[in-house]
Amino acid sequence: MADQKFVATNGETWGHKWGFRDSEFILHTDRTITLSGNRYDLCGMVMPDFIPYVEESLQIKVDPDDVLPEVEHKPVPPPQINPDFLSAVESTFPTDRYSVDSIDRLLHSHGQTTSEEVYKILYGQIDKAIDMVFYAESDEEVVELIRLAEDHNICLVPFGGGTSVSSALKLPKSENRMIVAIDTRRMDKIEWVNTEDGRACVQAGITGSKLEKELYNQGYMVGHEPDSIEFSTLGGWIATQASGMKKNRYGNIEDIVENITVITPRGILEQNQATTRVSMGMRPQNLLFGSEGNLGLITRAIIKIHKLPEVQEYASAVFPSWQKGVDFLQALSRTNYIPASVRLVDNIQFRFGQALKPHPEGFKKLMSRLQKLFVTQIKGFDPYQMCAVTFVMEGASKEVAYQKQNILELSKQHEGLPAGPENGKRGYMLTFAIAYIRDFLSNYHIIGETMETSVPWSKIRQVCQKTKDKLFQLHEKYNIPGQPYLSYRIPQIYHTGVCIYFMFGMYMKGIKGPEVVFGSIEHAMREEIMKNGGSISHHHGVGKLRKDFLPDTMSPASIELIRQLKASHDPNNVFGIRNNVLAD
Amino acid sequence: MADQKFVATNGETWGHKWGFRDSEFILHTDRTITLSGNRYDLCGMVMPDFIPYVEESLQIKVDPDDVLPEVEHKPVPPPQINPDFLSAVESTFPTDRYSVDSIDRLLHSHGQTTSEEVYKILYGQIDKAIDMVFYAESDEEVVELIRLAEDHNICLVPFGGGTSVSSALKLPKSENRMIVAIDTRRMDKIEWVNTEDGRACVQAGITGSKLEKELYNQGYMVGHEPDSIEFSTLGGWIATQASGMKKNRYGNIEDIVENITVITPRGILEQNQATTRVSMGMRPQNLLFGSEGNLGLITRAIIKIHKLPEVQEYASAVFPSWQKGVDFLQALSRTNYIPASVRLVDNIQFRFGQALKPHPEGFKKLMSRLQKLFVTQIKGFDPYQMCAVTFVMEGASKEVAYQKQNILELSKQHEGLPAGPENGKRGYMLTFAIAYIRDFLSNYHIIGETMETSVPWSKIRQVCQKTKDKLFQLHEKYNIPGQPYLSYRIPQIYHTGVCIYFMFGMYMKGIKGPEVVFGSIEHAMREEIMKNGGSISHHHGVGKLRKDFLPDTMSPASIELIRQLKASHDPNNVFGIRNNVLAD
Repeated sequence: MADQKFVATNGETWGHKWGFRDSEFILHTDRTITLSGNRYDLCGMVMPDFIPYVEESLQIKVDPDDVLPEVEHKPVPPPQINPDFLSAVESTFPTDRYSVDSIDRLLHSHGQTTSEEVYKILYGQIDKAIDMVFYAESDEEVVELIRLAEDHNICLVPFGGGTSVSSALKLPKSENRMIVAIDTRRMDKIEWVNTEDGRACVQAGITGSKLEKELYNQGYMVGHEPDSIEFSTLGGWIATQASGMKKNRYGNIEDIVENITVITPRGILEQNQATTRVSMGMRPQNLLFGSEGNLGLITRAIIKIHKLPEVQEYASAVFPSWQKGVDFLQALSRTNYIPASVRLVDNIQFRFGQALKPHPEGFKKLMSRLQKLFVTQIKGFDPYQMCAVTFVMEGASKEVAYQKQNILELSKQHEGLPAGPENGKRGYMLTFAIAYIRDFLSNYHIIGETMETSVPWSKIRQVCQKTKDKLFQLHEKYNIPGQPYLSYRIPQIYHTGVCIYFMFGMYMKGIKGPEVVFGSIEHAMREEIMKNGGSISHHHGVGKLRKDFLPDTMSPASIELIRQLKASHDPNNVFGIRNNVLAD
Repeated sequence: MADQKFVATNGETWGHKWGFRDSEFILHTDRTITLSGNRYDLCGMVMPDFIPYVEESLQIKVDPDDVLPEVEHKPVPPPQINPDFLSAVESTFPTDRYSVDSIDRLLHSHGQTTSEEVYKILYGQIDKAIDMVFYAESDEEVVELIRLAEDHNICLVPFGGGTSVSSALKLPKSENRMIVAIDTRRMDKIEWVNTEDGRACVQAGITGSKLEKELYNQGYMVGHEPDSIEFSTLGGWIATQASGMKKNRYGNIEDIVENITVITPRGILEQNQATTRVSMGMRPQNLLFGSEGNLGLITRAIIKIHKLPEVQEYASAVFPSWQKGVDFLQALSRTNYIPASVRLVDNIQFRFGQALKPHPEGFKKLMSRLQKLFVTQIKGFDPYQMCAVTFVMEGASKEVAYQKQNILELSKQHEGLPAGPENGKRGYMLTFAIAYIRDFLSNYHIIGETMETSVPWSKIRQVCQKTKDKLFQLHEKYNIPGQPYLSYRIPQIYHTGVCIYFMFGMYMKGIKGPEVVFGSIEHAMREEIMKNGGSISHHHGVGKLRKDFLPDTMSPASIELIRQLKASHDPNNVFGIRNNVLAD
């Protein structure tokens, strides 16, 4: 293996771990933490409560001097080059389109799954690497590359933001061919905007942040806000069937997209035009949501756009218990005043939010104390039981007013107390901090991950409890120090159920093969989720991480149908990333 | 051919033409019409204005004595029986499960498409008939029947309500095997209801009316109301990707269904449980919407159910012109107070509604005159330009109040005038009369049909105008008497566009092969629709009627993908009805 000192080359982002290079949580000698840089509202705040929160939650001590060192010289397996293919590429494309550089290859050989990917990159090594990275700039180049790949028996892997957390970008062990990642991020233009119809045609390599920024300048927006919005791409959203925070107003990705162009070894899958709701017989487009790189490369999509809302407001409410909060959400789900986003966090996550606050000073401090007093002393809320619901409301001012009034009224009926817009806003702000915190804590032997599922209303309690029980049970079984951390929130509500989003972590100091142990616990938790009525995924997708659960998800004939489809449409398995039903 | 005097055997319904046997429009000697029976609000009313409206619209005279006689002795091709299959069926199933009776076969050999189906049955003969009807009562029977069909090289055709208007039930000319229709209507039970999660598991042969009635008795509803709700089935809705009048509140069929069970020759396609929104990799279920009998038999689905709303209210508004109405709808589509149903009818259809009113008497007459005066004299609305929008609002009383107030306010901004709940209710009532009127008018040489498409906001004017031009142009070219009738409405709005629903008709007296001429005009109109930005269908589906337009709808590779899927999953083409991409 080439022994490569690691320097991130992905511009402003790390590439090998989460996020921007200038945004890092830092532990100071006084045991406060700060977030570096100035990208986020949290940046620069001195947060003294976080380490104590971690220590209390995990029942461990964080030792600032006991840092798990990141591997500095990343071992990258040497590229396996098919010389005929390489010379065909060299004679067909300009040299800036492809790279066999070790770091480029490493950066395209994984996603952001903790156990199977990031932990290995940070502290060990990955098993398999991409052999070449191709930076496609047009449909024509993609068509040509696929032709060459088919001719030379090459495996192609679509690569967007690299934020997959389902091991969808993990390379299949059984793949013996040369593997080329197609990085789509140079195909990042908005091709046209039609404001009358509320549509835009957008290249698939655009990141969420760029997409929203460019539309914003024209007075428009998409409103698709997955937590990865800064880095993930339109193509990735479609391939994983992504969900956005504000789906109640703008829809999930399958509601937003009206046409997809996918280039496959057998031609281009697309509709001749975008279609407002249509009945058109069996519709190939419907298979592309969740296709996870199995069929071809998504190069563009026509998507719905919206005028920027007149008003955006935050709000929040606290509830004496998780169950009260869930009851409120269910009642809300039956109304016509569901805000763009609504989110219930459990008590542990509520306190997590508090722990990431700077110490309030002066008048603010006073107010903050008074508020706490009212809620806990007068209303009798138990600080270790209470939960919070946060809201984002968008629309015309009278629409937002209607939502706000009714939401607060309904929350009162469920013993909720208004907790102000600031706490609402803070709740959403923290969303972007989670992955940075994962990488920060891993320095101190704490491995963390998130995990989501969709669950019917009647099974929420059961899924949460059983998943927690399983984690505690295995934590004990593996003799892991301290106690496990498990927190959950409900970031999405639907008519028949919700998405539950778990955050969990463990202090793995002294555990041998910690990422493997962690991964097996995660697997067992998913098993428990599904046994109790949860789904295989709400929006992260299946990839390879959850392939074992497909037989619990659909019938054997359903799986076979997709396999046959793949076999007949891509008989040489050019798109050989082998996700979901095709996983080994 | 067996010469068979026709007696409908489908219980209360005709089966060969639209609707209930006791509900027929009757032309009286004084040129008034009435609707027989007592199923509909319209029944028993004396309507003197309708025949004059028809005569004015078509520029013809309706001669009550010049009736086109229905063929009394329907010729039915003799059944082509595979004797081995027949004896296998006889030894496997009770005798009440199957029939080779000519009338049973005839009733299962077509849908309700005017040109290619109903007109032929009424006044001529169909080309091809089903050879046996199988009345399935359970999944086990379906599995067994499919096994026998595969063993004996039999073609199977799913049959639900028989209300298809896309020639999806028309038998393929190229089919030489014995053809068996599987009538699903004995599989019509609600298997379970889960009110906490808002779900029910329902057998696919249930009709909309039965489904809603049974849920109503438990205080629940689905809210899927296609115009065919009285007769069409859950399985049919999925197979055609149906849309319901109240989709703004309850969703279209793809929004309502959370799990589908389809029995195919290669096993059962289904998920192991219903899922609230899920990302699960490539999802076979997504292919079943619009599958039109191509893959297997849908036997059950898990669907969303809702508590009966606290309030249901109708409302309506009139607008000085079609364009003002469209502008209002577009503005409404961007709000959060879209009612369960909203519908804009053009001036011709507005007057159609007036023509189906009984002559008002006494105070009602006075009020009616005054209203007309106000709208036309004071506000200056041209009675030959004005249009109407009708609304159905459902929900909690405060939700409905919020909608009503804002809708009327918004309509004012677009020069709309409130026209009261009665006119709203009437508009929806007439929905159910359309198909009866088609069959009534065909007695007097008038052939009529409906046709729908989805269109982006920017193309509405163009699609309507060009479609109308094409109709008038061909009407002249074929020397058809009088003038053609064309009316349109917008029954559904979406973010990027609308569904346009056309009603058109012609007086075909003296035209040779009138249904063929009519069909070719319809085909040319669809061509025009698509050329100008409309879609192949909004909710009727593709079937065989619109197969020619699939290459204008999706790419060659997309069509090939579905063909390969079919070839590998049903290699013997047991489900050989050949719709959409599989049509000859």
